[in-house]
Amino acid sequence: MSDTSATQDRIDAARAALAEQYPRVRRFSERLCEPLEIEDYGLQTAVEASPPKWHLAHVSWFYETFLLRPFLPGYQVFHPRFEYLFNSYYEQTGTGFWPRHERGLLARPTVAEVYDYRRHVDAAMARLIAECPAADWSTVEQRLRIGLNHEQQHQELLVTDIKRHFAHNPLRPAYRADLPTTTPSRPAPLQWLDFEGGLIEVGATGEDFHYDNEAPRHRVFVAPFTLADRAVTNGEFLEFIQDGGYRNTGLWLSDGWAAVKQQGWRAPLYWEERDGEWWLMTLSGMRPLDPAEPVCHVSYYEADAYATWAGKRLPTECEWEHAAQGQPIAGNFVDDGVLHPRPARPGAGLKQLFGDVWEWTGSAYLPYPGYRAAPGALGEYNGKFMCNQMVLRGGSCATSRDHVRPTYRNFFYPHERWQFMGFRLAEVAA
Amino acid sequence: MSDTSATQDRIDAARAALAEQYPRVRRFSERLCEPLEIEDYGLQTAVEASPPKWHLAHVSWFYETFLLRPFLPGYQVFHPRFEYLFNSYYEQTGTGFWPRHERGLLARPTVAEVYDYRRHVDAAMARLIAECPAADWSTVEQRLRIGLNHEQQHQELLVTDIKRHFAHNPLRPAYRADLPTTTPSRPAPLQWLDFEGGLIEVGATGEDFHYDNEAPRHRVFVAPFTLADRAVTNGEFLEFIQDGGYRNTGLWLSDGWAAVKQQGWRAPLYWEERDGEWWLMTLSGMRPLDPAEPVCHVSYYEADAYATWAGKRLPTECEWEHAAQGQPIAGNFVDDGVLHPRPARPGAGLKQLFGDVWEWTGSAYLPYPGYRAAPGALGEYNGKFMCNQMVLRGGSCATSRDHVRPTYRNFFYPHERWQFMGFRLAEVAA
Amino acid sequence: MSDTSATQDRIDAARAALAEQYPRVRRFSERLCEPLEIEDYGLQTAVEASPPKWHLAHVSWFYETFLLRPFLPGYQVFHPRFEYLFNSYYEQTGTGFWPRHERGLLARPTVAEVYDYRRHVDAAMARLIAECPAADWSTVEQRLRIGLNHEQQHQELLVTDIKRHFAHNPLRPAYRADLPTTTPSRPAPLQWLDFEGGLIEVGATGEDFHYDNEAPRHRVFVAPFTLADRAVTNGEFLEFIQDGGYRNTGLWLSDGWAAVKQQGWRAPLYWEERDGEWWLMTLSGMRPLDPAEPVCHVSYYEADAYATWAGKRLPTECEWEHAAQGQPIAGNFVDDGVLHPRPARPGAGLKQLFGDVWEWTGSAYLPYPGYRAAPGALGEYNGKFMCNQMVLRGGSCATSRDHVRPTYRNFFYPHERWQFMGFRLAEVAA
Amino acid sequence: MSDTSATQDRIDAARAALAEQYPRVRRFSERLCEPLEIEDYGLQTAVEASPPKWHLAHVSWFYETFLLRPFLPGYQVFHPRFEYLFNSYYEQTGTGFWPRHERGLLARPTVAEVYDYRRHVDAAMARLIAECPAADWSTVEQRLRIGLNHEQQHQELLVTDIKRHFAHNPLRPAYRADLPTTTPSRPAPLQWLDFEGGLIEVGATGEDFHYDNEAPRHRVFVAPFTLADRAVTNGEFLEFIQDGGYRNTGLWLSDGWAAVKQQGWRAPLYWEERDGEWWLMTLSGMRPLDPAEPVCHVSYYEADAYATWAGKRLPTECEWEHAAQGQPIAGNFVDDGVLHPRPARPGAGLKQLFGDVWEWTGSAYLPYPGYRAAPGALGEYNGKFMCNQMVLRGGSCATSRDHVRPTYRNFFYPHERWQFMGFRLAEVAA
Repeated sequence: MSDTSATQDRIDAARAALAEQYPRVRRFSERLCEPLEIEDYGLQTAVEASPPKWHLAHVSWFYETFLLRPFLPGYQVFHPRFEYLFNSYYEQTGTGFWPRHERGLLARPTVAEVYDYRRHVDAAMARLIAECPAADWSTVEQRLRIGLNHEQQHQELLVTDIKRHFAHNPLRPAYRADLPTTTPSRPAPLQWLDFEGGLIEVGATGEDFHYDNEAPRHRVFVAPFTLADRAVTNGEFLEFIQDGGYRNTGLWLSDGWAAVKQQGWRAPLYWEERDGEWWLMTLSGMRPLDPAEPVCHVSYYEADAYATWAGKRLPTECEWEHAAQGQPIAGNFVDDGVLHPRPARPGAGLKQLFGDVWEWTGSAYLPYPGYRAAPGALGEYNGKFMCNQMVLRGGSCATSRDHVRPTYRNFFYPHERWQFMGFRLAEVAA
Repeated sequence: MSDTSATQDRIDAARAALAEQYPRVRRFSERLCEPLEIEDYGLQTAVEASPPKWHLAHVSWFYETFLLRPFLPGYQVFHPRFEYLFNSYYEQTGTGFWPRHERGLLARPTVAEVYDYRRHVDAAMARLIAECPAADWSTVEQRLRIGLNHEQQHQELLVTDIKRHFAHNPLRPAYRADLPTTTPSRPAPLQWLDFEGGLIEVGATGEDFHYDNEAPRHRVFVAPFTLADRAVTNGEFLEFIQDGGYRNTGLWLSDGWAAVKQQGWRAPLYWEERDGEWWLMTLSGMRPLDPAEPVCHVSYYEADAYATWAGKRLPTECEWEHAAQGQPIAGNFVDDGVLHPRPARPGAGLKQLFGDVWEWTGSAYLPYPGYRAAPGALGEYNGKFMCNQMVLRGGSCATSRDHVRPTYRNFFYPHERWQFMGFRLAEVAA
Repeated sequence: MSDTSATQDRIDAARAALAEQYPRVRRFSERLCEPLEIEDYGLQTAVEASPPKWHLAHVSWFYETFLLRPFLPGYQVFHPRFEYLFNSYYEQTGTGFWPRHERGLLARPTVAEVYDYRRHVDAAMARLIAECPAADWSTVEQRLRIGLNHEQQHQELLVTDIKRHFAHNPLRPAYRADLPTTTPSRPAPLQWLDFEGGLIEVGATGEDFHYDNEAPRHRVFVAPFTLADRAVTNGEFLEFIQDGGYRNTGLWLSDGWAAVKQQGWRAPLYWEERDGEWWLMTLSGMRPLDPAEPVCHVSYYEADAYATWAGKRLPTECEWEHAAQGQPIAGNFVDDGVLHPRPARPGAGLKQLFGDVWEWTGSAYLPYPGYRAAPGALGEYNGKFMCNQMVLRGGSCATSRDHVRPTYRNFFYPHERWQFMGFRLAEVAA
Repeated sequence: MSDTSATQDRIDAARAALAEQYPRVRRFSERLCEPLEIEDYGLQTAVEASPPKWHLAHVSWFYETFLLRPFLPGYQVFHPRFEYLFNSYYEQTGTGFWPRHERGLLARPTVAEVYDYRRHVDAAMARLIAECPAADWSTVEQRLRIGLNHEQQHQELLVTDIKRHFAHNPLRPAYRADLPTTTPSRPAPLQWLDFEGGLIEVGATGEDFHYDNEAPRHRVFVAPFTLADRAVTNGEFLEFIQDGGYRNTGLWLSDGWAAVKQQGWRAPLYWEERDGEWWLMTLSGMRPLDPAEPVCHVSYYEADAYATWAGKRLPTECEWEHAAQGQPIAGNFVDDGVLHPRPARPGAGLKQLFGDVWEWTGSAYLPYPGYRAAPGALGEYNGKFMCNQMVLRGGSCATSRDHVRPTYRNFFYPHERWQFMGFRLAEVAA
């Protein structure tokens, strides 16, 4: 078989795979919105949490901007102002963008119009996948993979932002009343697992899809360390609270203490004390606290203060990745439809590495040695955020199972709490 | 006929009149919302402009709080949290209220639920009007008249707030595409009318319905003055702009100049310059400026600066009321369905006193001599706002014709512009 | 005697009088600063309270700008940047001004340099007064009178700003430890005095010096009213506090209640509760509260809330002026060196009209009918502030006796408290 | 010789050394303040820059709190409120502290009183050094070394804060008119030096004084890298500006671009363009820009944007320390009295590693593996700041020569510019 026909076969296979994957990913975004009322689609209760309607439109804008306009001949944009309304933060597209904190003020386009926009983009994308000439295919394929992963990230945001918006409403409405629940229980005792470390390698190898911030793979020296077998639980975190953790300045980073005082934090986000009992706002409304569940919706500051209180520390991202290498990507993901972290399964070995809650690490989000951002606007995807944020690892109950991997680096500011964020303890090896 | 039966006849007549008026006023609120999409109902683009849904619920809360709970035996509230969600600012109800600047964050209750709330209240109100015992009637009647006038005020706010919300959207959508328009034209020259003044009386006589702030009627000395026959027009105001009015600090009040600089004002609200031409955002979308229309959506500061530039001043509220006494209440009101100010009709005499635009006066909003607010929460209606605001007179194209009168005192902060606000010039008699 | 020589005689007499008055006023500013340390001269603890050094320089700038530059041939400015540093808010001088909230950041020029600046201006002013040609005299004399009154106003601000700055220091230092004090005592009972009112005249007649905002004299109708014989006392105000006045929302104007909540007000400015006893910060440090002294350092909002609580109201400025006409200008002024309000003297008749505390009236600060501001920058003195402020009358213990008069209109925003501000009650005649 | 007497000898030697070093360090703080006017001592022009008087008092408070109160029997504090006024941020002392942004509002205590405070502390410290019993000596010696290093850090802040305060004054006063200057010149071309890296060690060995954040010494893997022989110069940075660096969003971190827009940055701090020429505010007033000097007063964001523009990156702190190991601690320090960075000397090898400008690294300020903060309030010295800040290395022209070392970790927020901050480029080895 000639080289050309081998290439052609590879392209055809990729076309076929993406022709199946693209509509599947797209449908899932809309499925997540099915329980919403029209009124919910436009809500923005915090600057960092966008309206569902905006997410649905923005992910479509992404395909339009980076694929359809440059690569589909004769493509007609759905609406000339959407490039301004639904760009998130890409400065180099030259179009500007509607202010982030005012996304909730766009009653128009209506929900129906945004779904029309999606149909319009989907039809064009189907054509592009089917008809894109071989010369463009490599770029198109690469961008499309980014686009689909991008939409998966916004699916996670749809879940976390909807939770945020619903929790802000004094009626505490349920997103879905039919989500599975557990009976509050006691967690299994924490176990410590030892790792030898050494001169190891971390980062993506480049064979499978990964974001640019996971590369290049490189060597790093890791001293021996010990890692908790599961995430810290609600019950454990409650002890920290009951021991005065939120009032003991000596446990906190300086910026963390400032946040505690300024925000009036006295428990994780979505915890409410009612008549001496703690309740949690969830996507199915208010539920009594389950001590065995991983603590969730805590900032880096709270995770760090807890670790200090416990005489431990957070793992670095290298330690975490080292421990995760070779582990199966199993856990409680958005695919499972639980939409809430679950208690760790009993038994030996590492648990909850993937799914349930993103785990704060003690590592700042910085470029790997030799990192180069892609040129142009797409290079703004990850690189420009490499300052002031901390790395989280492992995915959550709002992440798609096929979106996450051991090398995956998520990142948020240390004060942020509205993602499904928890943490696991580590310490220097004895 | 005995006194008792005369009273009974009067009550019966009042019941009959209110049984007709109540549903008519209620229907009009809903008619104003008919052109809206569900998405529009929850919008709040400025702290002072509430979402349409909130207005629809709040006016219902007013009847529930001040009439149904105290006077309708066995009345069941529609929802126990609505007394908190839809109270506007009444401190003495003891329920507190949802923060004003977050009214746009209440996706729930849904629009349909709010309409259900209205149905619930309306049914109960019909019963109250029909069955309220004679002993309560006087209070019920008085409060109901306030309640209906209150709803009319919120009908005006529905119109002005919808305009504000739609103007904020970069797509500049039309609330109704079918509103009547005029052809831009030149205004008739301004004419000056002389008034002798003297020791006159102003304020409500107490025979017909009026708000407490219009009483007591009292004597005031007014020196001879001259009043413009019509409001200042867009064309005249454009000359002020073209003469550098917004850059000439010497024309402005100190607080006004601060507002110009801080807000970056260079024209009235809703004016947009496109390629050297001025356009106005209206309830039917963007329209070219008509020089003959009254200038609208200007602050007190802009009205005052224009008057200084023109070598004139604004009339006091006493002068205005003196001139308006005996004038017919005719003009361009919300009943006319134009929803935009219109050029003055040709001919002699005072024009545009009522309707078109509220007219800023040079009078601060203060209590009349001997004014006493009503006791309890209803006393918060007008009295507690008697500081830092200026009086406007005459109603606008968004006011109901049967809502306004010569003694009617409207009031807004001097920086506010989103009502249909214009002004008329005055000067000391030659 | 010819007209010309009569004019010449009048000019000579005025020259002689001003040659005596100018240095006397100037010396008094410096005498007020004698108790200060160098460190105190540059302090600015609130945006509305300027550093003493700035006051000393600004009043000199006033003479330089409005008199020496235009009228003294060959005058050399002391420093080319001072016209920018020490202009307060005059927009029409064209020089701009250093931001008001950063006046405390000007360590340079030093205190010694500012005193040199004063010497430089004083020497030139002496020359101008002596040598100014007759053709300019009328303008020079008028501006000089404004300049001296302007300096007297800043002398009052020196006193009130120093009090503010010293009260901000946790060491509560005394400006002067040697100020006279009184023994806490019980006030005489309040008496009510009746006034018939009628069609009266208010405003300055124009014979003596007055600010432009006091003119023109004009007729106004005043209904019969009753006025308290003295100001409300600390003891009376304490009853309001103890009755929950600061927690009873029903007593407050809406903007006033917002201020109470936002600022956390629970007593007048400078009151401190220590172990259940109330103390006042004064210019001689902390003192126990004297129930007989006029309450001082209250906002308009607090004065209005107290009046509502007491079932009374504040007088209008016309009522106050009507009552004050013909009263002697006697009282506790800055000339007396007490620098603190004193209990009312016993006996019949109106007391404390002048001196002790400025009295809030219920009148908004607005132009009198026919008012015209002077042209140019000097016209900014009073006119541009005629919005959002309330009128106070009568002067305080920080005012110069020869600065005040029955027609004098002072004005501050309703939330301001740092002047020596109190109030007197009124009511409609029985 | 017995162990005991050997210990005694060591203690005696340490006493003697500290009895000489303590007054020397103390005197230097005061020498730095000699050129100040009294008025300058109280200035605070930015929240992060304290008044000189506050620095003089705070460093004295440090000895009082951590040494005199716990270890000198019968010590009488100078003033009971100073523990509140001059604590900087130590939460665990339990005294609270005067708000940081209001340090400039403390006119009292006066400058003279602060110098008295220093005399009082110095006398007591002399006694403590001479008389402290052997049982306490180890703790006292350790704390005293921290105290002296602490005062040296505040000496650097005295210099940088005075520069900030003077630069804020529109008169641009000189701190010292007699500082040495250079003639603007062209810099030597940049040279690149290669390092092999490998599995190296970084961190303090523990033999000499170091802060807790420099320990523990630990292994780290460093890939081969290349380092610039000198810091980036004004001339080079000017090319970045002239190439539109401050307008090219693609060069900036997201938070950096936000800072550029919000702060209006278009050049380093203290650069001023006058008639097309660039000038720098220095401690001797305005000077024309010297292209050969290291660029200074740039934020991390600007350093990073420049590196991106140049196709390079900043070194990590490990790379920097690796390169610095074994280099002499020579350079332009505060001891040299230049108080301004100087052009690199000609010749081969690494230049300007120490002194001149602190060098931003690409490393976030985080704990070294195994780091533990000291217990109690002294543990707040470094540990609680290990979030959101970036590491700088090498000291500046405002640092004492005997204060810095290869392992020294300084840290600031990435937006800060008022220290003498510059940077050096690195890149991956070819």
